Order: sequence, then C-alpha cells, then structure tokens
Amino acid sequence: MRTSIATVCLSGSLTQKLHAIAAAGFDGVEIMEADLVCAFESPEEIRALCARLGLSIDMYQPLRDVEGVDDETFAANLRRAEAKFDLMARLGTDLVLLCSNVATATVDDDDRAGAQLGMLADAAAAHGIRIAYEALAWGRFVDDYRHAWRLVQRADRPNLGLCLDSFHILSRGHDPAAIEGMDARKLFFLQLADAPALDLDVLSWSRHHRLFPGEGDFDLVGFLTHVRRAGYAGPLSLEVFNDVFRQTDVAGTARHARRSLNWLADRTAAAGGWELDRVEAPQHPRGVDFVEIAGSDLADVDRILDQLGFAYGGGHRSKTVRLWQAGAARVVLNEQAREERPRLAGFGFLVDDAEAAMRRALAIGAPEAFRLTSAGEQRLRAVAAPDGTEVYWNDRVGGGSWLAEFGERADAATPALLDGIIDHLNVGYAWHQFDEAVLFNTSILSLEPEPVTELAGPHGLVRSQAMRSADGAVRLAMNVAPPSAPAVDRHVAIRVDDARAVARRARERGLRFLPIPGNYYDDLAARFALDDDLLGELRDLDLLYDRDARGAFVHFYTPTVGGVFFEIVERQGGYEGYGATNAPVRLAAQR
Amino acid sequence: MRTSIATVCLSGSLTQKLHAIAAAGFDGVEIMEADLVCAFESPEEIRALCARLGLSIDMYQPLRDVEGVDDETFAANLRRAEAKFDLMARLGTDLVLLCSNVATATVDDDDRAGAQLGMLADAAAAHGIRIAYEALAWGRFVDDYRHAWRLVQRADRPNLGLCLDSFHILSRGHDPAAIEGMDARKLFFLQLADAPALDLDVLSWSRHHRLFPGEGDFDLVGFLTHVRRAGYAGPLSLEVFNDVFRQTDVAGTARHARRSLNWLADRTAAAGGWELDRVEAPQHPRGVDFVEIAGSDLADVDRILDQLGFAYGGGHRSKTVRLWQAGAARVVLNEQAREERPRLAGFGFLVDDAEAAMRRALAIGAPEAFRLTSAGEQRLRAVAAPDGTEVYWNDRVGGGSWLAEFGERADAATPALLDGIIDHLNVGYAWHQFDEAVLFNTSILSLEPEPVTELAGPHGLVRSQAMRSADGAVRLAMNVAPPSAPAVDRHVAIRVDDARAVARRARERGLRFLPIPGNYYDDLAARFALDDDLLGELRDLDLLYDRDARGAFVHFYTPTVGGVFFEIVERQGGYEGYGATNAPVRLAAQR
Repeated sequence: MRTSIATVCLSGSLTQKLHAIAAAGFDGVEIMEADLVCAFESPEEIRALCARLGLSIDMYQPLRDVEGVDDETFAANLRRAEAKFDLMARLGTDLVLLCSNVATATVDDDDRAGAQLGMLADAAAAHGIRIAYEALAWGRFVDDYRHAWRLVQRADRPNLGLCLDSFHILSRGHDPAAIEGMDARKLFFLQLADAPALDLDVLSWSRHHRLFPGEGDFDLVGFLTHVRRAGYAGPLSLEVFNDVFRQTDVAGTARHARRSLNWLADRTAAAGGWELDRVEAPQHPRGVDFVEIAGSDLADVDRILDQLGFAYGGGHRSKTVRLWQAGAARVVLNEQAREERPRLAGFGFLVDDAEAAMRRALAIGAPEAFRLTSAGEQRLRAVAAPDGTEVYWNDRVGGGSWLAEFGERADAATPALLDGIIDHLNVGYAWHQFDEAVLFNTSILSLEPEPVTELAGPHGLVRSQAMRSADGAVRLAMNVAPPSAPAVDRHVAIRVDDARAVARRARERGLRFLPIPGNYYDDLAARFALDDDLLGELRDLDLLYDRDARGAFVHFYTPTVGGVFFEIVERQGGYEGYGATNAPVRLAAQR
Repeated sequence: MRTSIATVCLSGSLTQKLHAIAAAGFDGVEIMEADLVCAFESPEEIRALCARLGLSIDMYQPLRDVEGVDDETFAANLRRAEAKFDLMARLGTDLVLLCSNVATATVDDDDRAGAQLGMLADAAAAHGIRIAYEALAWGRFVDDYRHAWRLVQRADRPNLGLCLDSFHILSRGHDPAAIEGMDARKLFFLQLADAPALDLDVLSWSRHHRLFPGEGDFDLVGFLTHVRRAGYAGPLSLEVFNDVFRQTDVAGTARHARRSLNWLADRTAAAGGWELDRVEAPQHPRGVDFVEIAGSDLADVDRILDQLGFAYGGGHRSKTVRLWQAGAARVVLNEQAREERPRLAGFGFLVDDAEAAMRRALAIGAPEAFRLTSAGEQRLRAVAAPDGTEVYWNDRVGGGSWLAEFGERADAATPALLDGIIDHLNVGYAWHQFDEAVLFNTSILSLEPEPVTELAGPHGLVRSQAMRSADGAVRLAMNVAPPSAPAVDRHVAIRVDDARAVARRARERGLRFLPIPGNYYDDLAARFALDDDLLGELRDLDLLYDRDARGAFVHFYTPTVGGVFFEIVERQGGYEGYGATNAPVRLAAQR
C-alpha cells in the first residue's frame, strides 16, 4: 500500500507540511496549488526537498473550471493549463487533478465537454502529463462520478482518467458499486475522506467538516472494497478539508492522518480477505482492569475511596503507588507524578491477548509511553492516547498479573465494603483532540461510537459522545468543552447494585457528595411519577435519577480533587445511558 | 417599548444572568426551565431577586410535547404541567411558553390537538396562568405559526394565545404578513432572533447559529412591522441560541443584546412611521477623517509614512501626538499610550452632524470612551467599538476641526509627495467579537455588510467580511482568525492613482515592502494574460494584482510594526473588491 496526503489537510507553510508528512511515514503528497503559490521556495526547490525526504509528488491540484465552456473561454483555459503543465514539469510530477466545472460551465452538453477534455488531454500529452478528472459533488453539470466516467470514456485518451474522491461520492448518496466495473487503468487517483452525517449544503460540509477515515459516518471500508475490487493499485491519499486540522500542530495532524490510513487499510483488508496491509487483529476489551490517578499528593483521593468503601490493597513493592479495590473496580494511585493536580492518568483494559493488543496499537501508529521499570519488576507497556492518557492491556487476572507487584493483600479477597465494577470512564478532551480521540478509540481500543449529544453547561455547550464495546463492558464517555471554557474534569463511574445503600453508608463514613439543587427534585417530581419515599430519599442523599423506556438510573458524584472525581451509578433494568439530562445540573453544581 | 430576554441567551448561573440582564437595562426576563433547575436558589429567592433588580418575569419556558397525543399520555402531560403551574406561582409569573409537540405527538388531528390545548388552558386557568403556544419550525405536526393560530382559535380559551418567534417563522420562509390579521389580544408574546442564511437542518441552525437582531440575514424590521401593525404591545424579547454567546462574558453579552433591540426598534419605527423608540437618525459616513495609531514608540511608523511620501503635519500643541498627511489621508500617531506594541487605536469618520452621530451611538448603547482634555483644547468625544477601538465623528473639515490643534502646518497645503485617501480599514477581531462588531458597524457606523468570504491562512481559515457605506467612501474589512491562531494584524489601506509609481518612489526612499514569492507571479501569468512588461514590473516591485469583470486592483504592503501595517491600493475601472485572492499570499508572507 502506498499512502499519500494532500497538503491542504495541514497547517503551516509548504515546507513545514512536507517535513511533517515525511516524518509521519507517508510515501507521497498531493501538492495544492495555493500552498505552492504562497511558498518562497521555487518548484525546483520543492522537488528537491521532496526527493530528499523520500516523498513522491503524486499529484498537483487542482485545475478548475476548464470544460463545458464556449470556444473562446476554452482557449483561455488551455493557455492557463499549459502554464500549469510547465510548472508541473519543474515540480517533476506528471499527474494533475481536474475538478468538474463549477463556475464557468455554460453548456450542458456531453459532446462538448468530452471533446474539450480530449483537447486538454492532448495538450497535456505533449508535456507527458496525465489528467485525473473528478466530479465535484457541487459541479455545475458534472456532479456524479459515473457522469465523469462517461466523459472520460467519450474522450478516450490514454492520459485521461478518473480521480475518485469518497467525499464527493458518499456525500451525495451515490452508490459506489459502479466503481467495480471500471477499468483500473483509468482509475488514476483515489482521494479518501470521512465526514459526519450533516444536513448542511454539500459545499460547506466538504470545505469545513471532512474527517480522516474512521472518524465520521461514511462507510469507507465498503467504499475502498469497491475500489480494490476494481483493481486500483495506486496510492490511498487523504484529502480532508477540516477547520480544526487546518490550525492544529502540523506534525501531530500528519501522524494522526497516517494512523487513519493504517486503520482503514487493515479493516478493508479484513472485510474483503485482502491480505495486504493487515495488522494484528483487534483485541476486543472485556472490561476495565484498572484506572490510574496520578498526582504528587493523593491523600484526598485515598480518603474518598475509603469513604466509598474501597479496600486498601497495599503499596507497590518499589514505587510510591497504592492500590484500592472494590470488587472488580481497581484504582491505582500514583504519587510519582511531578504534577501536583491529581488527574486521571491511565486506564487498563482486560483483553484475551495483551501483547497482541499492544502490537496492534503500535502497528496502527500509537506512540509507546515510556515507563521506568526496575529490575525484577514486571515490564508494563502502554501507548499514549491523543490527550496523553496511558493505555494498558492485561490478559492475566489475579496472581500472575501486575497485582502481584502490590504484595499479598492485593490478590486476596480483601474486606471491601463496596462491591463494584468500573461502569464507564468519563474523559474530557480539548476541542482540537476530539476527532483524533474517536479514531484512537475506534482503531486501538475497538470501541464503537454512540450518537453525539450536547449538554448545556454554564460555560457553553459541551459536546458529548460515548464509545463502547459491543457488550457494554467498556464504555468511554467523551466530553469536549467550548474553546474558552476551563478543561472538563474527568471521572470514574463505578457501578453498584444499590446506589442508595452505598450513598447512605458513604455519608455515614463522612463523605460529602456533590450537592444538588432542590429545584432539581421539583423538576424530577414533575417529569416522573416517583413515589414520595423515593423522591424524599433522592433529595436527602443528593442522588440523581433518570429513566427511559428500558429502565432507570440512580447516581451521585463525589467532590472533585484536582481534575478528577468519582461517580457511583446503579443501572436498573435495561437502562443504557449515562444520565445525560442530569449533566447540566452536575456541571452547574461543580462550578 | 418593554424589553425582555431569555436566560438561555447568556452564560453563567441564573443569578449571574439576572444581574447582567438588569444591568444592561432590560425590563424583564424569560426564565428557561433548565436554568432554574440548575440553580440552588429557590423559586421564591429568584422571584425576590428579580423584584429587587426591577425585572419582571415575563415568561417561564418551555412546556413541551403536550398536545396531539393519546389520552393516557395527555393525562400524564397534564400532571406534569400542573407541577409547573405550581412552580410558576412560586416564581410569580403567569405566562408559560408551550412549544408545539416535537417528540411525542402521534395524532395529526386538529380536533384532538385543539381539544387538548383547551383542556391544558382550563387547567392553567385554575392557577391564573396564561399559555403562549408556539409553532416550532421542526414541530411534528404543527410547524407553521398559521397552523398554531388555527389551533388557538379552535380551542378558543381566553388564557390561550400565541407566542411568535421570528426564527421559527423566517427560517421556514413563511410569510409573516398573516400576523397583521391576528387579534392582538391573542398575541401573548414575541421572541426575536436573527440568523445567518445557512443551508443547514433547521434544528441545528436554531440551536447554534441564531444571532441578535441586526447581525444576520433575516428581515427583522419587516417582521416587527407586521407585529406592530397587528397591534401587539407586549415586550420585545430576545431568544437567541448561539454557541458563542453561551460562553462569552455574561455582562458584555447582555449589553450587546440590549443594543440590538435599540437598533431594531429604531429601524422599525423609522420604516413604519412608528414614533416610539426612535433615536437620533443615522449619520451616513462621507469618508474616513483620520486613523489613529497608538504606541509608546512610533518611530518605525513615522519612518514608513515618510518613505511612502506622507507629509509631516506637525505635533499636537499639548500632547505627544503627531499628524501625517497625504492628500485626504490623515494618520495620527499617539505616543501617549502605555502599551508598547503599536496598534490601530481609533478611527474618525466624516459626517454631516458629528454631535448627532455621537448622540445616536450613545442612545443605541455604545459606551463612551474616556479621553483626557486639557483646558483650551477641543473636547473630542468618542465611543468604544466592541474590540476597544475608539470611534470619532467630525463634521468640520479644515481650520475649524481638530486639525487646528496641530498648529499652522497641519491645515496648510503641505508638500506631501503622496496624494491619497483612506480606501479601507482592515480590522481583526477575536472569534467571539465578530457578531457584536457587525451590529456595531450596522447600527452605529451605518455600514452595510457584504458577503462573508474565507481566506486560507497558514494558521487556519480566516473569516472575512467587508462592511461599507452605500457609496463605498467608507469600507471596513473585518477578519476573524481561528481561536488558536495569533490575533490578526490590522491595517490601513490608502488608495492612490498610480500604485506602481508610489511603489517605485517609496522603494527609492528606502521602504522595503512585504516580499512576495516568485511562484505567485507564475500563477498570475497563468491566470491572467498580462503583458510581460506589467508582469515584470509587478514582480520587481513585489506588487499584487487582481482583476474581475469590472476592473483591476494593484496593491502592496509595508512591513508590520507591532500590530499594524499599511497597504497602498490602486483601483482600476469598477473594481470593488479587496484582492481577497491575494490574502493567503500576504498571510503566508507575513508569517
């Protein structure tokens, strides 16, 4: 598999982009005209730089608004194209993208458009240049790849072929199956982009909201399967116009982009029996093994865990790390951190084969996290999520696992008052990390996205999306605060059988919960016909409540320590949500 | 005119919102349920706080998903509504907003819906409560205000009327003229919101992109005229769901909101001969009188102006302020500033009646800028634009004006080498200032918006919108950088007859222009059939070029000093643009 990316996906100057693209491991690049025009480096310098970096210039883009015009306009267009062919010779690339005419086409006549494409191709042939014609989703007369294909066939020139772009095809709902019937020698180039399902005009959607594969709602695995079946063997190239990626760190975005292609190639190969470019198969998470909270002084976290009924599982044999356990819920407190403010620093997941999970993560492109290991200690390997959280995998429960590092008490049945399991992890991301986190969670954690919701917080709307394993054993609730708001605190939700009993006991043990306004309970009474006893108990204990057609949800929150807090949740019946309607109350109360 | 605003427009807690709303001068408030539910203050406390602040609680909102359901569901809905009626009694408000059913309506039957509205109204009547029924643009069966009106007539209860919301009516393209035929006694409430023209699903459009009146594309003057003709005499209330306003400073947004109603009332009154709520008539700007650049050391700006051919017009008689002139282009350098970095700090506009312009600005609600005035000095009054820029007006050109402060030389025909006029001001805004700036420029500077464009910069997309006077004598190009990008520098564009001659002379006088990449000129040659002499001269002088159907544009930029630079522009023929296609080249070169 050869990989490529359009320079328009990234921020910075052209040379910065090229360095980042090469460093991320791409084989080639599509150079967008605007990037070259704004560069002080000559085409010869760019050509030489790409050669030194080992990047092929796979395509120059775009030529626009050429075909379907009157003869006089076409003559001017040919003159303009000739100048670009000269430029391409200086750049040392032989393929140019031609977008279907948006602005100047006046004649809806395939004879004329085909003839003009043929004349353009002939002019290009004199320079040894090939033309990849692409139907833009908002083209004036040509807005469907099948129409572009008919014109390419009509013109019938060896150096005229198609560029297929997943966005332009899938955004219009066009069936990509017809790709399979095309002559692979005529498929000159393939541009890939994902996108969220939006009911927005297609031009704005395309210019601002494209995503890397695996981050949106398009079926790119199915799309690429059609392309593969047609026999296309050229590069997989990314062309993603996105307001966020255009302004974030160029090196990070390039690595992020590259990972999306690893994921897509792997999943497409797996779906279609195509053996190339497979990586280690995904390890589906069976549950959360532990969460790690880091900070220079975690005494306040110790106190809360003790009040909740966790059992102290002992200290690590060589590090200032402590373990707390409550049934299957394990919390590791790591005081080796230099940073004072406690934070949710890592997660461990239970899988069938931890080494395979790690191999897959590294093959997809996740960076390995560094961790000091002393002699005689188990070496724990982890990768860093986009926000820096460390992710571990474990396939050995009990004595053979990392728990042995905590001595005898950890592995024994300690007398925890609380019997729980980690229900979900609630993680906050900065506004520019969200899409990358979706890809990480999909490709490396094997979680599937649930629909996006929005929560009204006192600082603005919080975008929220849960991702979960098929059986719900692992759930990650992702939140993004608006750019001007403080970072969203993270929390660990522990599921218990009887949240009211846990709350009563924790209160007796001195835990003060997050207080909830009385108005909330008045509203609860209006929304649900709760009996007075239940309502009174909820009110007394500062418990929150939700209900849907399948069941009910009772939950409460501890105070926040640094950037982390705990939630105790009880799921009744088939309730599958996270109490999203209560989130604004929590956000306001935490403020 | 009574004014009101929905709490959902603003950020912060309910009490913070109420304080800000009162301070901004609103008469009343719509309390959104979610804001009350999240508040620790009881309904009685909120009622008492509003009383102390002098705010009437004009409406509680919303009741949802009540009508058009089966009998069992309706019984549950009535129970829920009764709880809210009790709550409203505690709050001391007698009007509740009822949105047309979105989620639970299953029966598209006006008989049933009308009967259920009637039963709800009867239940409300027992509490002394009135119901304002509103057709949401995405209502399940009722999505048109005329349909809501038919149901209200069918139910025929004295305490059941309509709530009209400009967004729900204008977003669907429904003709608001039918409002005029309605019985004013049945028009219980009026919610106003503007919005940009977007091709987006109406729910997302409504929830995220509403704007205050005067900031979007809706004809709110026409809308309010219909409402006024119907005889509606209740409050004008703002209900604006907007992602930006939800997260910006609550006090500032409340003042901003209040100004939008002053503008709307004034323009509607002016359009319809309605004499209430008029403020001083707008003063249309005839031209730019001067620009002021402030900084603690402006020697580098002096040098650039001298190199461009400006004449030194002398120092101010009592302040460390200097004047430079080139024909009608006047630049004031103010070294009284404490801030070191030079910045574009103020503009003066030429109008027929400066005092009237100032009176209008203050009546709309612009804050007056403070300026020290010494004895014997002319008192110059200014208001502060949303970004802090000071705005002045002048109706006396020559000896009687502020120029007299600069002694004899200023008023005389000084031997400037350059004869120019200020063509446009290019101002950068932070992402959260843009909409407020549009309102300021519309309502106070009497400028009209041109279409929004987007420019690709190395740090992301820059949103750009020009606003101008009808004759083009005053033009403001507004730019907004993405949140993570550095602030956009501002500049002053000076129009001359022969930009090439000015460039040649300035270069001889030692000015180094912003250098332009050679690739730009290759692209220019491809795009336009320019003769070689012109292209060579443009390339030699680092000049930029643009052309449209009406004319051409030649321009160049000086280096940036602090946060400000100058542009020299030449407009050929009827060219009315700003060389937007060249902006990415400039942004990259300035980086």
